[in-house]
Amino acid sequence: MQSNINTLYQQIHEGSFAAIARGITIVENQLAGAQELLLMLRRNHSARVVGITGPPGAGKSTLVNALLAHWLEKNLKVAVLAIDPSSPFNYGAILGDRIRMSEYYTNPNIFIRSLASRGALGGLNARIIEITDIVKEAPFDLILVETVGVGQSEVEIAGLADCTVVTLVPEAGDEVQTLKAGIMEIANIFAVNKADRDGAEGLYRNLRILTHEKANGEKEIPVLKTVATNGIGIDELAGAIESFLKDQNSLPEKRLHLLTEKCWQLIQAHRMRDIDHHQLQIRLKTALADPHFNLYSFTARYLTK
Amino acid sequence: MQSNINTLYQQIHEGSFAAIARGITIVENQLAGAQELLLMLRRNHSARVVGITGPPGAGKSTLVNALLAHWLEKNLKVAVLAIDPSSPFNYGAILGDRIRMSEYYTNPNIFIRSLASRGALGGLNARIIEITDIVKEAPFDLILVETVGVGQSEVEIAGLADCTVVTLVPEAGDEVQTLKAGIMEIANIFAVNKADRDGAEGLYRNLRILTHEKANGEKEIPVLKTVATNGIGIDELAGAIESFLKDQNSLPEKRLHLLTEKCWQLIQAHRMRDIDHHQLQIRLKTALADPHFNLYSFTARYLTK
Repeated sequence: MQSNINTLYQQIHEGSFAAIARGITIVENQLAGAQELLLMLRRNHSARVVGITGPPGAGKSTLVNALLAHWLEKNLKVAVLAIDPSSPFNYGAILGDRIRMSEYYTNPNIFIRSLASRGALGGLNARIIEITDIVKEAPFDLILVETVGVGQSEVEIAGLADCTVVTLVPEAGDEVQTLKAGIMEIANIFAVNKADRDGAEGLYRNLRILTHEKANGEKEIPVLKTVATNGIGIDELAGAIESFLKDQNSLPEKRLHLLTEKCWQLIQAHRMRDIDHHQLQIRLKTALADPHFNLYSFTARYLTK
Repeated sequence: MQSNINTLYQQIHEGSFAAIARGITIVENQLAGAQELLLMLRRNHSARVVGITGPPGAGKSTLVNALLAHWLEKNLKVAVLAIDPSSPFNYGAILGDRIRMSEYYTNPNIFIRSLASRGALGGLNARIIEITDIVKEAPFDLILVETVGVGQSEVEIAGLADCTVVTLVPEAGDEVQTLKAGIMEIANIFAVNKADRDGAEGLYRNLRILTHEKANGEKEIPVLKTVATNGIGIDELAGAIESFLKDQNSLPEKRLHLLTEKCWQLIQAHRMRDIDHHQLQIRLKTALADPHFNLYSFTARYLTK
């Protein structure tokens, strides 16, 4: 096992797509060797992580698609992790989008992997940090993480990504109000996509006002108009992302927060590894028949057994 | 300490409001004696728990108020736990409501306690199970738990309560569609409140269709119209609650699920009691300066120290 994992690590390090895919599968499903593989990671490459988030229907996948075309021309190696149940990178996609994007599935500079999202309330894949760490070990220039913006997932993506692009569309006018506090905290760049539609100008102006207020004399969060379907504004968006990544040189507070949470969870998982959830439930069910059942003494007994 | 807690337990058991309030404060804030007190609980009384949930503005507090008046007349002893930041039982309340309800604050048959809700995403108070267990140890007939229906909190209330009343108002028409799946799973009774308003009949009919479909030939979930502000429909609602409680004689799956989760959390808290979150973050921050930082070996080292 150990020597297999050693070999796999070497292949990931050298950029074998098959090995990266295998590595992701191993850590995503906690297969044998997952821990060994994770312990080998040395961050020997310098891929930067770009989060692309926003509400469903904001055209995130089309935007990712357009950014891929842009960076391919510049000869960059890019990985895409799509955690969006409605993403055309996933299987349930409409045919047109699949065909349009299929060229990238065989391009040696583009690695694409779609991941299941966690639970009904949205949120990133439960192992997204491990998965991203595996991909970071390969020689990519950029890793794009596409996520649907639903509550918790936005906080997570902001901690995971070096640069977070929040994508909005004119129809999202009301949502800007709702999400206002949240998205202002996580966005490093705003993309007003489908900018040729009615209402785009209004959304753009509102965002400019919000980012101006928020900046309070400091550097404002860039707001860019894009029409991803025909490439309008993509050069500017890619430029804004590259520029943000170049200027960023300290550990963001959000990253430290996310890593602390993750470390806490790893410790917790380790400490709870002997507790069987199903067996606990069966024992509880039996114990509850006692009319004087006490959850706290039940738990205390369970802990001392 | 032990003998003080013994005394406190006795006083709770006998129904002293001061003791119940003190017991709640102790378990809510995990003060000294919390564990001892919880270990003493024997479920010697038979209070049933009624959850009143629904979106903000559905008039839940007014409904609770009207139900209190109803049950007071029947000489029942009732406790109210209000976990709703906007509830008039809380301090930020509008004056009118406070005055209307103030009579109950001094009524010897009514115990009222407002509790902080957990986190920004809503959800019940983190210690609601412990708090309810304390109140159950006192000689109440009913314990009403009023919660704002936001995502997770609805699942929790359904596990905690013996009977869950979902309160909706005509304006919530769209929300019925959104919440449809969720609320059909948790509601034991629907109250269409503010039933004198436009749209009430439409909401009522929609709910009747949904509950009919869901019943699939079995007993349908009752849908009742109320105008809590002037007591209309309150006798019927109280009757429906009492009738539901009388017919219910097995452990609901949701209760077992909630108790399993709670037991799991208690075990987890016990196993993690030596881990200091803040210290972990400081250590991580230092370790992250290493360009080859590896979260998984950092965690492994932390676990073996």
